This record gives sequence, structure tokens and C-alpha cells, in this order.
Amino acid sequence: MALIKIAVDAYGGDLAPDVNIEGAISVLNKYSEIKIILVGKEEELKKKLKAKNAEKYNIQIVNADDVFPMSEKPSLIIRRKETSLYKAAELVKNGKADALVSAGNTGALLACSLFVIGRIKNVSRAAIATTFPSKKGFSILLDSGANSEVKPEVLESFGEMGLEYAKFKGNSDPLVGLLNVGEEEEKGTEIQKQANKLLREKLKDSFAGNVEGRDILLGDVDVIVAGGFEGNIALKTMEGTLKFFSSTLKENIKSSGPLGLIGGLLLKKTFNKIGKKFDPSEIGGAFILGVKNIVVKAHGNSNSIAIMNAIRVASEGVEKNLVYEISKHFGG
Amino acid sequence: MALIKIAVDAYGGDLAPDVNIEGAISVLNKYSEIKIILVGKEEELKKKLKAKNAEKYNIQIVNADDVFPMSEKPSLIIRRKETSLYKAAELVKNGKADALVSAGNTGALLACSLFVIGRIKNVSRAAIATTFPSKKGFSILLDSGANSEVKPEVLESFGEMGLEYAKFKGNSDPLVGLLNVGEEEEKGTEIQKQANKLLREKLKDSFAGNVEGRDILLGDVDVIVAGGFEGNIALKTMEGTLKFFSSTLKENIKSSGPLGLIGGLLLKKTFNKIGKKFDPSEIGGAFILGVKNIVVKAHGNSNSIAIMNAIRVASEGVEKNLVYEISKHFGG
Repeated sequence: MALIKIAVDAYGGDLAPDVNIEGAISVLNKYSEIKIILVGKEEELKKKLKAKNAEKYNIQIVNADDVFPMSEKPSLIIRRKETSLYKAAELVKNGKADALVSAGNTGALLACSLFVIGRIKNVSRAAIATTFPSKKGFSILLDSGANSEVKPEVLESFGEMGLEYAKFKGNSDPLVGLLNVGEEEEKGTEIQKQANKLLREKLKDSFAGNVEGRDILLGDVDVIVAGGFEGNIALKTMEGTLKFFSSTLKENIKSSGPLGLIGGLLLKKTFNKIGKKFDPSEIGGAFILGVKNIVVKAHGNSNSIAIMNAIRVASEGVEKNLVYEISKHFGG
Repeated sequence: MALIKIAVDAYGGDLAPDVNIEGAISVLNKYSEIKIILVGKEEELKKKLKAKNAEKYNIQIVNADDVFPMSEKPSLIIRRKETSLYKAAELVKNGKADALVSAGNTGALLACSLFVIGRIKNVSRAAIATTFPSKKGFSILLDSGANSEVKPEVLESFGEMGLEYAKFKGNSDPLVGLLNVGEEEEKGTEIQKQANKLLREKLKDSFAGNVEGRDILLGDVDVIVAGGFEGNIALKTMEGTLKFFSSTLKENIKSSGPLGLIGGLLLKKTFNKIGKKFDPSEIGGAFILGVKNIVVKAHGNSNSIAIMNAIRVASEGVEKNLVYEISKHFGG
């Protein structure tokens, strides 16, 4: 079998390049079918790989002298062709790599996906698709931040991409909902009202109608369609709520007296299990759907586990040909 | 001291009228300065009060034969003047009650607030202001669902109302943030970009700029300004996340074996304390700000504790004259 080649933006992310290198090494320890191309400052990367005794892994390095900052205006990436991100995207475009993984500037990654790699035919906008553990097992939210303003037709196309993604994840008969402020068809802005109609026409019984914020984790749908504005707000609200709740839990256990502390110790394994379940690092990254090749966005503050999982997710996308499934759906 | 008269929509809410009656009784057991007017089917209410031995509480009943359904189109309330909700609003308008509390149809309560009671001079739109326990103690989110589509000027006015509300809650120097998809000024839709500018001009140092979903509970701001669309999505996403996380915790403890179960028992008090902290019933209801009298919206599935707390919140609003503070601010 041919190796799956993943271009990793070695200098993308708050903790780059160290966690990116470590994540890559972890992948190679586990998966023999993956080949990693680290893109970034060649000399530094070589030194770091050597320091980690990683020469045996046969990691390829492609040099890129520039780094695109996390908080820079995304559109400027197009003029910074020597950045690790841009060069990694070029490798994919030129067929030197099968997929791109980056924990860098989201907007810039999106711009590279669209302008370097390119959109799938008949797909109007790309969407970031995030997955969560949910009551039903998992749920998919898209778009979780690529597009601040969307038309109803765009939301409808997100529904179609989400369906294909859910099938790719093993759900043969997924249900799609539209994120809104109430279940009734007339709820929301004009955009939601129109999108509801279009989704019903196109997805038929696979469309369950409007859903509310609580349904992202607790609902009966598998795919939640949202504009990038409200999708991103929902995503980050979930993150903040989980973090605040778990830190409150921790503090309260700490101050609960000796018996409570023993209780905490006895439940340590359970807490760790739940912590792992809800840990974004374990999910590993979000596909940017609608692009001609596999692109995975890892969280900006990814640790090495998150990078490892993002690479794993990307290689699954290549192996199970997610891009082909979406292209086929859109008649491309 | 004159009694604070609260008109309670006795037939509003999923569990009405029983929890509404019980909530009212609980209030009267605790607070001697409150007088309750229950609005709804007189004969039924009388019977129920009698069955609960509640005659001694001197609860006034105002008859209303009709009930406005939870899922009915809100605008229809204006034609159903015999509903418990409409009649309760009329009591406030006519000075027979100081405040209105309802767990009924949110849109209909809003319509009654605006068209029966009326808006404060120079306030363009009313907003639902929800409070949460947060890293800083508490945070206020407004609008959490009254207006699906808002102009930048409206968001700016929400910032001003939120400031007054935070001061009312005892924070002498509150900070306001605008809910958005990133901190940078150019983030979000055109509406957010304009609102950011207006808020900065008007609130000056009290405006902290854009905030993200995670900042609602974890951030440094006290007031989070949002359009009703994204505000409602954030609110319900928080609710769903908390519910899913706690049920996952419960299930995992249950299946964690004998030592884990003992751990769970030892932490029972701590869990209850946290559960109480995050229980929406304890918060008790959200003010509809911008209206000429105090109006409090309790959750549709309120239990008697939630109703009790909603009445308590409403009476505080009257006592500390929240409406006057907002009117004064807007030059009314």
C-alpha cells in the first residue's frame, strides 16, 4: 500500500514547533502507513529531530523560512509564500502530499485551502466541521467559524457536506438539524427561514428541522448546520462552559474536607476518563470541508496529543476518501 | 413600607398552575414585604389554594379564563386579552401591580411588555438579560432571545442597559464585551463591526471590546452584549453542555465499581452544591430590560423554586428601582 503523505505546518500553533514534532513522532510510532513531511525552518527542525533521536523515523523536511503569525490578518497569507503554512499547502496542491495539517491561524489556513488548494466543484463555500462527543455518540457542527456571513444556499450546502461527513464517520442514516433559536419553521432571521426551506427540499427526511443550542450535545440530530458566526460562538461557549464547570468541580472537591478529598481520589479514574472524553486534544482537529484535498485544522493551543490526533484524522480522511465522497455528491 | 405587588401569570409555564402557586406560597413564607396577585382561572386557583391550606397568605386572585399556549405564535397574544398573561400585564400597566412574572411563552411575554406596558423613552428595543455564575462571580448576557435581528445601534443600547443592570447587581465598575468570533475589531459581520465602534464611543473605558463564547463564563467582562439570535444560541448551548456533562459524570460514577460509588457518596454534598450553583432554577428568571415596569421571564419548565426565585428577583427590581436607573440613563 502506498504511504499516506501528510504535510504538517511545523510552525503553526501556539506551542510550535516542539509539539508539532512530538505529535508527528507519536504518529509514526503508531501508524506505519503514514509519512510525515514537516514544513518549516529546516536547520532548526533538523536539530530538534536529532535532539529527540528521531532520525530513524525518516521524517521529510521541506524548508520554509517564514512563519505566519497567529493573530495576523488572514488575507495577508497570500503574499507570504515563504511561510510554513503556505508552503505546506503548495505541497498538497502539487501532489507532493495528500493532506495538510495546521494548528496555525485559522483564517490563513482557510485562505490557503481555498486559494492554493482550491474548492470542490459546485461547492460554494468551505466549512470547518467540528465533532463532539454527544448523547447519540458524536455530533458534527459545521460551520464552526470559516464564514461570518452566509446565504441560505450556503447553509443548505453545509447540510449536504455534513451528511457525507457523518456517513464517512460510520453513520449510515444521519439526521441534520439547522441551528436556530427555536424549533418552529418561522424562527430566526430571514437567512434561517430560507435555509430551513432549502434544507427540507434538498435533504428531505434526512433534515430534522430547526434545533437549538442544547441539541448540539443533547439532541437527536447527528449534524448541526450553522453559519460560521453562530457556529463559532456555540463551539467556544461549549469549551468555556466545560472548562468553567470542571474547574469549579475541582476547586469544590479540594475544599470539601478530608472525606471529600478521599471521594475525589476514589473517583480519580472516572474523572480522568470523562476529562479525556471531553478533551478537544482527543478529537484532534476539524476538517475544512469543501476543499479539493484533505485539510485538518488543529486547535491553536494544541499539545502533541492534539497534533498526533489531527494527523491521524487527516490520514483517515485520505484513506477513506472523504474528498471523493463529497465531490461525487456535488456531481464533481 | 408599602408592599411590593407582583402579578404572577399563574397559567404560564409547562408545569402551571401548580408550581406557580407553590412558588408564590414559598415567597410569602420568606418575604413579608411581597404581595402576590395570581392571574388565571379564579375557581380553579381558589380550589388549589384551599387544598394547599394557603388561605392565610392573603393571595389576591384576578380572574382570566384563557391561557396562551407555550408554542402559539407570540403576536397573537394581542388579540387574546382574556389570557392570564395579558391580564397580568394589564395589572402592571394600570398600576395595580408593580411587576410581572411569567414562565409562559417568551415571545408573547415580550409582546405584552412592549405593547401593554410599554418601552422606556429612548430605548429602541427590549432585551432579555440572563445572569450566570462565572469566574468573576456573575456575568450578564443580553439579549438572550428577544430580538432575532438587531442593528448596531440596538447592540450599543444593550451595552448601556447591561451596564446599569450590573451596577444594580452591586458591581460599581462593570466591564462590557461584545459577543463575537474573535477579539480583533474587524471580526464578525458588518453589524458587529459597527456595534464595536459605537460601544467604544459611548461606553469608553467600560467597553472591553469583542469577546468570544468562552468568555461568557471564563472572561474578564461582566456584561456580554449579543443579538438575540446568537445570545439565545449561546445560552442554550451552555444549558445543554452543563446537562450533558453532568449526566455523563453521573453515569460514569454509577458504573465505576464499588470504590467509585463510595467516592460518589463522599462527594454527594459537593456535587449538590455545584448542582445548585449551576441550576437555572436558583437564578430564578431574567429581566426583560427596556420596559417601563419590572418584567421577569422565568424558564418555561420552571419548578416551584424557579418561580419563587423569579418573584424574588422581580421584587428586588422593584425595590432597588432598576427601571428608574435605566430610564435616567437614557434621559427619560
